Amino acid sequence: MRAELINPFLTATHDVFSTMLGCTLTRGPLGLKQDRAPVHEVSGMIGLSGQYRGMVLVSVGRETALNAAGILLGERPTELGEDVLDAVGELTNMIVGAAKTQLEEYRLSIGLPSVICGQVQSIKFPPEASPIVIPFDSEIGPICLEVGLVDSPKG
Amino acid sequence: MRAELINPFLTATHDVFSTMLGCTLTRGPLGLKQDRAPVHEVSGMIGLSGQYRGMVLVSVGRETALNAAGILLGERPTELGEDVLDAVGELTNMIVGAAKTQLEEYRLSIGLPSVICGQVQSIKFPPEASPIVIPFDSEIGPICLEVGLVDSPKG
Repeated sequence: MRAELINPFLTATHDVFSTMLGCTLTRGPLGLKQDRAPVHEVSGMIGLSGQYRGMVLVSVGRETALNAAGILLGERPTELGEDVLDAVGELTNMIVGAAKTQLEEYRLSIGLPSVICGQVQSIKFPPEASPIVIPFDSEIGPICLEVGLVDSPKG
Repeated sequence: MRAELINPFLTATHDVFSTMLGCTLTRGPLGLKQDRAPVHEVSGMIGLSGQYRGMVLVSVGRETALNAAGILLGERPTELGEDVLDAVGELTNMIVGAAKTQLEEYRLSIGLPSVICGQVQSIKFPPEASPIVIPFDSEIGPICLEVGLVDSPKG
């Protein structure tokens, strides 16, 4: 996947965590997603279509999810309830929305964020997508961003 | 969610299982998704955008996934490997693609199918989506379809 497609997602993740959560993210090394790599316990997912189509995943552990929801809601929840999952979905939505704005030329449109919670063994992208995985660390815990986009078929 | 949005997904699921797998589906009662209802072990997901946006999920148990892959590949795999997950992703893609064709007036575009594998506690749609859950039974095992679509904001 081309760098000019990835960079807006990196910038958007930094910006959303900074603006919404007051968190400074430290980016780890970009890598190709291994097919069966497990993800954190809570993952926001959102589908994209347009000139490119695919899926973006924002995955966080239980503690990071609770910490993030605590900042957004003003009080840290003690369990992974609806409010926490909605908070992760909304952060995912903001990240993908901000990246989309930077990728205006590709006329992307975005779906709705869904949030997966559980002991997920893998989230597999299609063989052609070769998703890029970007780990971040922050004051509230680790975050993992996965971006898998492919060229849309013409027409 | 309006019935005219759901029916094409029902028809498409029947058609894809019949054409690709030679399976006759028996539909169970439609229901509203309970927020924290668990899903089967393997779930294909695909995002939609356009005049409506959202997510469609095709969820099957391990046995159903292995049976479906066996029909598609000519030999039944013994474990949930890449080929099985890709088969579930491809069935999801065909179902949503066929439904999209029937919903042409809404100019929907579809993302790429991703496949979740594991003990998923819940897949939460956004609060406004009120996804519809449609269980099916078949010779190869139960299948669950979830469709969550909302009106897109104008512009």
